[in-house]
Amino acid sequence: MINTLYLPELREMLAADDVAGLREFCSALHAGRTADFMEGLTHSEAWAVLRAADRPTRVEIFGFLDEDAQVEILETGDPAEIAELIADMPPDDRVDLLNEVNPQVVETVLPLIPTEERRDILRLRAYPEGTAGSVMTTEVARLPETLTVRAALEEISRQSQDLETIYYIYIVDSENHLRGLVSARQLVTHLGKPETLLSDLMKRDLVTVEAIDDQETVAEKVADFDFLAIPVVDAEQHLVGIITHDDVIDVLQEEATEDAYLAGAVEPLEESYMDTPLFHLTRLRAGWLTVLFGFALLTALALESYRDALEAVWLVWFLPLVISSGGNTGSQSVTLIIRALTTKEITPEDWLAVVWRELLMGIFLGAFLAAIGYAAGYFLAPSPADALVIPITLMLVVICGAILGALLPLMFQRMGLDPALMSTPFVAGIVDIVGILLYMNVAIYLLDSVQ
Amino acid sequence: MINTLYLPELREMLAADDVAGLREFCSALHAGRTADFMEGLTHSEAWAVLRAADRPTRVEIFGFLDEDAQVEILETGDPAEIAELIADMPPDDRVDLLNEVNPQVVETVLPLIPTEERRDILRLRAYPEGTAGSVMTTEVARLPETLTVRAALEEISRQSQDLETIYYIYIVDSENHLRGLVSARQLVTHLGKPETLLSDLMKRDLVTVEAIDDQETVAEKVADFDFLAIPVVDAEQHLVGIITHDDVIDVLQEEATEDAYLAGAVEPLEESYMDTPLFHLTRLRAGWLTVLFGFALLTALALESYRDALEAVWLVWFLPLVISSGGNTGSQSVTLIIRALTTKEITPEDWLAVVWRELLMGIFLGAFLAAIGYAAGYFLAPSPADALVIPITLMLVVICGAILGALLPLMFQRMGLDPALMSTPFVAGIVDIVGILLYMNVAIYLLDSVQ
Repeated sequence: MINTLYLPELREMLAADDVAGLREFCSALHAGRTADFMEGLTHSEAWAVLRAADRPTRVEIFGFLDEDAQVEILETGDPAEIAELIADMPPDDRVDLLNEVNPQVVETVLPLIPTEERRDILRLRAYPEGTAGSVMTTEVARLPETLTVRAALEEISRQSQDLETIYYIYIVDSENHLRGLVSARQLVTHLGKPETLLSDLMKRDLVTVEAIDDQETVAEKVADFDFLAIPVVDAEQHLVGIITHDDVIDVLQEEATEDAYLAGAVEPLEESYMDTPLFHLTRLRAGWLTVLFGFALLTALALESYRDALEAVWLVWFLPLVISSGGNTGSQSVTLIIRALTTKEITPEDWLAVVWRELLMGIFLGAFLAAIGYAAGYFLAPSPADALVIPITLMLVVICGAILGALLPLMFQRMGLDPALMSTPFVAGIVDIVGILLYMNVAIYLLDSVQ
Repeated sequence: MINTLYLPELREMLAADDVAGLREFCSALHAGRTADFMEGLTHSEAWAVLRAADRPTRVEIFGFLDEDAQVEILETGDPAEIAELIADMPPDDRVDLLNEVNPQVVETVLPLIPTEERRDILRLRAYPEGTAGSVMTTEVARLPETLTVRAALEEISRQSQDLETIYYIYIVDSENHLRGLVSARQLVTHLGKPETLLSDLMKRDLVTVEAIDDQETVAEKVADFDFLAIPVVDAEQHLVGIITHDDVIDVLQEEATEDAYLAGAVEPLEESYMDTPLFHLTRLRAGWLTVLFGFALLTALALESYRDALEAVWLVWFLPLVISSGGNTGSQSVTLIIRALTTKEITPEDWLAVVWRELLMGIFLGAFLAAIGYAAGYFLAPSPADALVIPITLMLVVICGAILGALLPLMFQRMGLDPALMSTPFVAGIVDIVGILLYMNVAIYLLDSVQ
């Protein structure tokens, strides 16, 4: 996957200390592409290349390097140069990155960063991970409502270098209370009337989030309203930052990954699969696996208590079939319901409608599987009458699987827990136990040979 | 969930035909919020409210209504008014919507739409669902490179009404070949030098996508590069449209939903859980459930062939425990590997490294579960020596689960199939069969009482 196209040239230029050549390489392409082309270099080579670039280009390319490279460069580079680089980085990105860097290095570098930037870093680091405050940037365009369009454009043009986006301009009063929003689009369309006041243009009905809000809520608001950015305020409506569309995409991807891991009964990883140390990954898996094993131990106890019924050995042949049918139906239901809860399509209050739907679907699906199951039982059971145990149990087990798979995540949500904790294997494990109880009792009831 | 705050007032104004009041309601708030407040109205009431608004506001609020309401309004409204509404809608959104509307209505309305807009609709509808072409908009700011900053701003200001975004301005030659990109930010920062030519400002190294590219690839590019929008070109590098950040968020959410459904062995729904008709949803579930049932039938056949070994009834008690331990480990592996494949962290070529990691993790996890399993076996098996069957089988089954769970999605990817088709229940079903074979053979090998 690593692009090696420019590696020999880059190494030659590094060996020859060809600063002009390296500088040209850095500025020729989109920064994201330049970073891709540098992937094959060692981290110290990459930093040597970046040092040849001018400061804005250097920090832009640095932002596209992968996190390992970024961390190593910060940990091994000259502290004064590193401080300069950090001062140039977007406020939200540098705080995320500093959290990954050896704390001793951070302590060495922080005092070398200009006071204002340093304060900003310390302030943002105070927000807990997963909150709006932890993903926002503080570099936001703020203007008073008394400016004209002309003055606003001049001011924005002057500040542009330090702003994450100039496309949404926030109107604040003298105490930094958020009053309104003017878009760059409005300014441009009013170029013909440059004396228009911002107060005449600004939208006053703003959708905002608080710094302590969950980042997932924030991402959903931006996604619903198609915003470029959303303003973050504190409890007194002071404008403290903004969260931009690219950060929202990151949050959505992060949450999707987390939900996917939970669905498979894996404690979410912080790093990627290959980068997570083997022992750490094993521990992340062991927790849920042990819980699931605990449930499975109950199946052993349940079966042990039906030891007499199991003397009819043909019943054993169908045991995995019967319980997995319930588990699979439950897996489907839990998947559907968690997704509907995540997208806020349903709430725990809708439980009755949901159970009704699952009951009907369970009846249809159970009847269908029961028909196939009876055909198999017909050949393997001692008599066609005995074989009836299979379809009857399948019917009951599939219905129970459908309803339990729907109710369990609704209950979790209701209790204030993350419904995504209801993983597919977890629901299947619970339904396994129910399946065994149903199977054994149907057999005892129907079969003369079984007590 | 429905906000009923303004419903009585709205209905009063509708009854009194208070056009001025309704118009004020429509323009007072952010369009997305206005749409939220209208959720409690019937679709025809909602349309009556919207008709009071001016055209730009009307189409903006309409865009935030839920799809059911949009479809019903289109299908029941006056064709001339509907044609006007459709002509005002963003090109990508209206094409998506028209695909949901009764084709007869579309045929009635299309001829009433101005020629140019109609052609645009027909062109976009030609792109298959899931391609870049199907999510792009054609309302893109195009300028020649010979313009000055001043002229460009004037031109953009004039076209603004018809553009999805004015923040990225694409530079094309006289034959509409894409040549470069100038951002509104660059224009604003060059306000002091209004005679600068766009050719001196424009970035020439553009990341583009082709109209026939998969929408998922497009979304990943935009997410990786933090773009506001990405240009879509045809095979001859003609600029045919752009895909904006909000469409990318929609695509990412759609793909995350699809992956989540597949992981739970549900054929992805087109609509939400509650809106999908019950019978249709049952059919979407029945497909995978039948496949899984087919696999489970093999477990019945496998067990039947070991009928003699199963005479040792205590082995049966541990059967669900043993096979579910393999299935759960496999579920974890498949989840981890599918996620790593989706994020392009690994490719099928990495299979050896992946298998090695899974083997080691399988040994650790298997040893841990085997220890607990032996304790349980110690009490339930006829003798401590016999109980050894349980930990040995658990060890083997967990290792096999880990390796199979990793290899199956890698194989699917390698064969050009979507690895996400390897659902958690599917892998668990395959590992169940392997688990039974291992269990029975370990028992036959170790126990004198079993042949």
